[in-house]
Amino acid sequence: MTAKTDTEVIIGGKVYTLSGYESEEYLQRVASYINNKQNEYGKVDSFKRQPIDTQNTLMQLNIADDYFKAKKQISALEEELRQKEQELYNLKHDLVSAQIKLDNAEKRIRELQEKSGSV
Amino acid sequence: MTAKTDTEVIIGGKVYTLSGYESEEYLQRVASYINNKQNEYGKVDSFKRQPIDTQNTLMQLNIADDYFKAKKQISALEEELRQKEQELYNLKHDLVSAQIKLDNAEKRIRELQEKSGSV
Repeated sequence: MTAKTDTEVIIGGKVYTLSGYESEEYLQRVASYINNKQNEYGKVDSFKRQPIDTQNTLMQLNIADDYFKAKKQISALEEELRQKEQELYNLKHDLVSAQIKLDNAEKRIRELQEKSGSV
Repeated sequence: MTAKTDTEVIIGGKVYTLSGYESEEYLQRVASYINNKQNEYGKVDSFKRQPIDTQNTLMQLNIADDYFKAKKQISALEEELRQKEQELYNLKHDLVSAQIKLDNAEKRIRELQEKSGSV
């Protein structure tokens, strides 16, 4: 368990002191992501014409959209992982079958060799 | 390609018309997620005491944190998938080796059988 720490980040030119268990490096990355979004939006006239509370909601929607897109990717990756695990299970089964057949074949070879040796 | 549509969502009690290619169902889920966050925060006194722009930044940080946590999960899943693929590759290799050994053993059995038959 990491100790609770205070980290200062700058968002939209204002200093915020964030208290929590996250690393400074992590919080700076998150702050930087928000600043980049605010800068992007700040260049769009149709955005700047909106009232402040609408601007805030649009920003929240935009970040939440990134989050939901990431969640969709998580679902897709989890499904892919399930398929690979099934494939692994099948292959392990095939490998065991092949090993048993090989063991039997080798046993048969020894029997035949003994037989031909004894003739 | 889906047609661009207008969807009305309610966020913080205010109606927003969102124009885009996302489905209505998707946008309602995103709006609902934001409303839930706003409701959660609305119950926290230390949050309500903050100036509005600080409240907005804290909300953005909170949503961005969900996004970064999801991205971390994506990285972990991608790494797990890479490991499974390596495991699959190795298993396929082992299976091919076992098959070749089995083919050789069966060939040897036939030879021994012919030899013992011919004696």
